[in-house]
Amino acid sequence: MKKHNFYAGPSILSQYTINNTAEAIRNFAGTGLSILEVSHRSKEFTAVIDEAQQLVKELLEIPEGYQVLFLGGGASMQFCMVPFNLLNKKAAYIDTGTWASNAIKEAKLFGEVDVVASSADKNYTYIPKNYTVPADADYFHFTTNNTIYGTETRHDPDLNVPLVADMSSDIFSRPVDVSKYDVIYAGAQKNLAPSGVTIVIVKESALGHVERPIPTMLDYRTHVKKGSMFNTPPVLPIYSALQTLKYYKELGGIRAMERLDLAKAELLYEAIDSSKMFAGTVNPEDRSIMNVCFVMKPEYAELEKEFLELATSKGIVGIKGHRSVGGFRASLYNALPIESVKVLVDAMNEFEKKH
Amino acid sequence: MKKHNFYAGPSILSQYTINNTAEAIRNFAGTGLSILEVSHRSKEFTAVIDEAQQLVKELLEIPEGYQVLFLGGGASMQFCMVPFNLLNKKAAYIDTGTWASNAIKEAKLFGEVDVVASSADKNYTYIPKNYTVPADADYFHFTTNNTIYGTETRHDPDLNVPLVADMSSDIFSRPVDVSKYDVIYAGAQKNLAPSGVTIVIVKESALGHVERPIPTMLDYRTHVKKGSMFNTPPVLPIYSALQTLKYYKELGGIRAMERLDLAKAELLYEAIDSSKMFAGTVNPEDRSIMNVCFVMKPEYAELEKEFLELATSKGIVGIKGHRSVGGFRASLYNALPIESVKVLVDAMNEFEKKH
Repeated sequence: MKKHNFYAGPSILSQYTINNTAEAIRNFAGTGLSILEVSHRSKEFTAVIDEAQQLVKELLEIPEGYQVLFLGGGASMQFCMVPFNLLNKKAAYIDTGTWASNAIKEAKLFGEVDVVASSADKNYTYIPKNYTVPADADYFHFTTNNTIYGTETRHDPDLNVPLVADMSSDIFSRPVDVSKYDVIYAGAQKNLAPSGVTIVIVKESALGHVERPIPTMLDYRTHVKKGSMFNTPPVLPIYSALQTLKYYKELGGIRAMERLDLAKAELLYEAIDSSKMFAGTVNPEDRSIMNVCFVMKPEYAELEKEFLELATSKGIVGIKGHRSVGGFRASLYNALPIESVKVLVDAMNEFEKKH
Repeated sequence: MKKHNFYAGPSILSQYTINNTAEAIRNFAGTGLSILEVSHRSKEFTAVIDEAQQLVKELLEIPEGYQVLFLGGGASMQFCMVPFNLLNKKAAYIDTGTWASNAIKEAKLFGEVDVVASSADKNYTYIPKNYTVPADADYFHFTTNNTIYGTETRHDPDLNVPLVADMSSDIFSRPVDVSKYDVIYAGAQKNLAPSGVTIVIVKESALGHVERPIPTMLDYRTHVKKGSMFNTPPVLPIYSALQTLKYYKELGGIRAMERLDLAKAELLYEAIDSSKMFAGTVNPEDRSIMNVCFVMKPEYAELEKEFLELATSKGIVGIKGHRSVGGFRASLYNALPIESVKVLVDAMNEFEKKH
């Protein structure tokens, strides 16, 4: 049976990415070797990482003065790498969920952290709007998309300090004004590649302004200088990332992806809003295009398990909500076809008719 | 043409590992989904990581009180994680090559580092033997196999302090007395898996004795507590690692691998030693079983390129020596069949007859 993959991450990748990765495991770039067993210094792989860096720059229209890195360790490692490299005295953070809160915890090891706002009071069901960022902050850190709670900031705030963003779960779903940022980072396992690589976009002039010694592997300058090849990079995840980037370019780039993403989200949110049984969990204006969180209305709460069973019978995978929210979460990443959303909506309608 | 893969890393993996990984990219554990796009929290993947941890314990006969972790970031990240977690006042290191020297550099950020010996004086062509480790050192760090220079320590030293070892390029090639170690770490991309995961074996009672704050992702206790699932682990590399571990078990375990490795190395070193044109570069008693470094004797030095061309014509890949040593380096990792070594030896003999 065809599966409809709504996992929150690692999550669905395009068939183009999967097929080309499978092929490279048999025979990579005509070398007669598997991509799993070629040197990262081989000319065939250096061509891969070079092209991947170039395509990220092209797709996100990254201005001069920025470097694109592919690092191991996950976005969680960036929670400490960002303040290691950028926090001199004070940084501003906004607390919009679990990952934002984890980033704040790490930053506090390095200096003063001004948490300018938090939506923890309402279980992170909204994005705080009215806050002041101190002008003497080294940077303002925010999580663009809160995977667990289903809220999202789909714009680049105009502030008086440089931005730093964790875009793990919505990078490549909208155009970004990179010039406002010192650092953008994203674990690849949502809109890019299998897990194991983190993309980091770093403004070179933002580096080298802190006094503390930085361990070599945690110093962005190490990886800038060596083009992400200071040590052995995660070869296979980078190869898969390149396939996804090529696929995005072929489909028309980021704006084309955004149109598809908005259409998918609209379809599902409309189904939720017009439903008698289901309800969204977050402030409508802060709804995520990537992760749609919803629950059974209280009077139908006991039917949750039955709906999950119906969904499973239709080939739907990964819509059980995170334990912090409960209910359901449908992740509509770039690679998810709208047909899968229709299958989910049909299942919701069928279920509603039955009860 | 069949390729003979002598890359130093990422390097040859068993066909069993490659085939099973390719299959899982099409359909992982009967889920109908690719291993590239399944949640790390799915029951199918948690079974993978659990079994991989178990098999490492079984194959290396790890005693109680140790945890096996699968981390991102590479062995180079361990160069700072080890002192972050273990270095209170002073640590002892031995400098046997580039990676040992990199590890020393990082440790110096955290406390006093006593470099008990170095073979830098002779371009790392030997392993220093007579050195004293101070009794008040928190640990003694060494690199078991020096991939670049082709030297190896194939035993677990008896010292008065706990050992810490970088076994990136010879783990699973000999039995190890793990009880002597506080930490053993190894980038996977030699004897285990594609790049992107590092295996860390850590003695639980060695943790928690330093005063400094440790960033969450760099604290071994984080990963011990969460079974390597604090954040999203590198799923595909861990899946491939499990295949290799199963393959080792099926072949008879580590002692069986060691017999095969010793036979391969003996074959090649004998060919070098009996040759008129080729010569080994390191002290014979310190020769690595994994990475065989050799050069053309001075009088034949100009024929280096011609031999590389002959080797390439036989399907031999990856024997160009590292720029720090020059000449040739043949890496004979576990997955390399002895037939490939025979092809190389035949090429050497053919070349010698011709000249």
